[in-house]
Amino acid sequence: MLPDSAPGLALVKPAVRAQAAYALAALTAPCKLNQNESPLDTPGPLKARILARAAELDWNRYPPFVPVALHALLAARHGWVAEGVLVGNGSNELIQAVLSVILGPGDVVVAPAPTFALYRLLTAVLGGRYEAVPLGASFVYDLDALVSRARATDARLVILNSPNNPTGSALPPGAVERLLAETRAMIVCDEAYQEFGGPTAVPLLAQSSRMLVLRTFSKAMGLAGLRCGYGLAHPAITAEVAKAKLPYNVNALTLAAAEEVLADDRVLMERVAEIVAERERVVAELNVIGGLEVYPSRANFFVIRCRAVPARQVFQRLHGEFGILVRDISGGPPLEECLRITVGTREEMQAVVSALRTIFHTPGRGPS
Amino acid sequence: MLPDSAPGLALVKPAVRAQAAYALAALTAPCKLNQNESPLDTPGPLKARILARAAELDWNRYPPFVPVALHALLAARHGWVAEGVLVGNGSNELIQAVLSVILGPGDVVVAPAPTFALYRLLTAVLGGRYEAVPLGASFVYDLDALVSRARATDARLVILNSPNNPTGSALPPGAVERLLAETRAMIVCDEAYQEFGGPTAVPLLAQSSRMLVLRTFSKAMGLAGLRCGYGLAHPAITAEVAKAKLPYNVNALTLAAAEEVLADDRVLMERVAEIVAERERVVAELNVIGGLEVYPSRANFFVIRCRAVPARQVFQRLHGEFGILVRDISGGPPLEECLRITVGTREEMQAVVSALRTIFHTPGRGPS
Repeated sequence: MLPDSAPGLALVKPAVRAQAAYALAALTAPCKLNQNESPLDTPGPLKARILARAAELDWNRYPPFVPVALHALLAARHGWVAEGVLVGNGSNELIQAVLSVILGPGDVVVAPAPTFALYRLLTAVLGGRYEAVPLGASFVYDLDALVSRARATDARLVILNSPNNPTGSALPPGAVERLLAETRAMIVCDEAYQEFGGPTAVPLLAQSSRMLVLRTFSKAMGLAGLRCGYGLAHPAITAEVAKAKLPYNVNALTLAAAEEVLADDRVLMERVAEIVAERERVVAELNVIGGLEVYPSRANFFVIRCRAVPARQVFQRLHGEFGILVRDISGGPPLEECLRITVGTREEMQAVVSALRTIFHTPGRGPS
Repeated sequence: MLPDSAPGLALVKPAVRAQAAYALAALTAPCKLNQNESPLDTPGPLKARILARAAELDWNRYPPFVPVALHALLAARHGWVAEGVLVGNGSNELIQAVLSVILGPGDVVVAPAPTFALYRLLTAVLGGRYEAVPLGASFVYDLDALVSRARATDARLVILNSPNNPTGSALPPGAVERLLAETRAMIVCDEAYQEFGGPTAVPLLAQSSRMLVLRTFSKAMGLAGLRCGYGLAHPAITAEVAKAKLPYNVNALTLAAAEEVLADDRVLMERVAEIVAERERVVAELNVIGGLEVYPSRANFFVIRCRAVPARQVFQRLHGEFGILVRDISGGPPLEECLRITVGTREEMQAVVSALRTIFHTPGRGPS
């Protein structure tokens, strides 16, 4: 049925053909701790309210060109102006739009390393130059290095994921203020995990139009399956970023879901508090295990470094023997032998602690 | 609260700042015939099945990285291979992805004019050169001109929207075969409105890897609010196009909805047949009205040219006096004094006929 060869491939840009596809091995497990998702489905009553609204919507109609109702709710939540809000089909789409309108060929993006891989990927697609500034010891932000690199390269963009994926590290107080004062770049704060204990740059929006904050409904709000992210910036900036988004990109059901979440997020915020408490408990438990190192985190995940057993082997035993799927991030320095573990329910985290004790041959301390 | 000025604007690329935002006046009306939507909401039982599946989904989990179940259903529907299917957040996203992987600066896209505006917009964003080939008299495709322009410019892409938005014209038999044989371009057939009576290039997929067909769930399937489109091509080509899409771009509820539609689309296809019959009936009725011209169409919309009354005035009276919202496409040649009218329900179209008779002072012929 298929033509044997594909001469049409010659029409695809060589740079695209050379690029490896973004792929994620489709592993599954009873205990899924590899994508920093919420461990729990949307609370029943909230889900029912959203489904009731979905039933009332006219699915045959395009979503609103500008989702003004959701913009207004988000503005109210953050004490910002509705004209300075932009909603996307996941915050990834907004990252792409921001980079598209700012980066020309050769323009520089400065970001810490390691961080979320999409920034580098999209910078490359747009022909920009990506300058990675290593995090310091224990994955602490090296602010001096970020500032001097941004100044030396006259960076157009500095992207700060805080708390940072995959390390969980958060920006120190005053960091964004200093970057605004000492560089000429647009400062993008990707606060996807902010609700789990990170600082926020939202108050700085009122001080500078070189400030852009990204948030998502995928993590603390537990709506990863519905795809909704948003950005906050000076209205003059969001108007420009909006030009790089396709029209009608956020579907009508997702808009309704986001509005319902904002109308009452108490249960979700209680869950966030539980995740944070669980993270602290587990990090403390794991710290006692010999042969591995745990890094503190302000997000809904944390990093362990495997010393006594190779990370690849730990990953495989967790998956094969214990049904626990984590993310193997042990590519090379500074993440050699590192795994990233999402904080799930108490039961899931008990299973993680117990499994790691077994793998690292550390006896348990009894029920905790 | 806002900084008075926005110096951050200087960081936005001049080409972006110079570009007008894609905007659609947010007019509403009881009779909404301006976006080529289905006039009816998803059939009740189908909607109920989709909502039941939505209730069972874990909204906290990301959608599948590759929606294999939906790919398989679409492949079966079109007699194609699942590896040659790509699903997007609306077909607009796939248009963007196709252009991104093929067009470098200065590369040529050939398309008829007038056609869907997004092709030109995205070509400009990517730095490509857009060569518009005018449609002939009565908006018929000028195939000789398309072939010779594509050859003269060594076009990398030829984009054919058939049936064509906004004119409703369809490609003549053998057109795509000839473009494949006589040019070296990738031929993209955007068949968003195919179900309403257009030809299809799907059988040509098996003959050439320079062939790409786009479809959508927004029109015949009536799911504009849920955002789902798809592309069919040689697997070597879809693999490249996939690199330009963001991961997890189609949300989990939409994937479930598309699967349910494909499992049983009988009611939807009956509605398509009704729309087609209604289109033919209305075009015949309007042809009798003096002072306007109606163009034949193979889509769920048609174009009228206002001769005796200015189009702008017809648009405003339809909206203001009759509560009927159509699309004013009367920008300039060859669409001067033209309006595009979506085919709605029989009642809606009766209202259109009656209103246009009043506006053009043509007495009705009694109930039809």
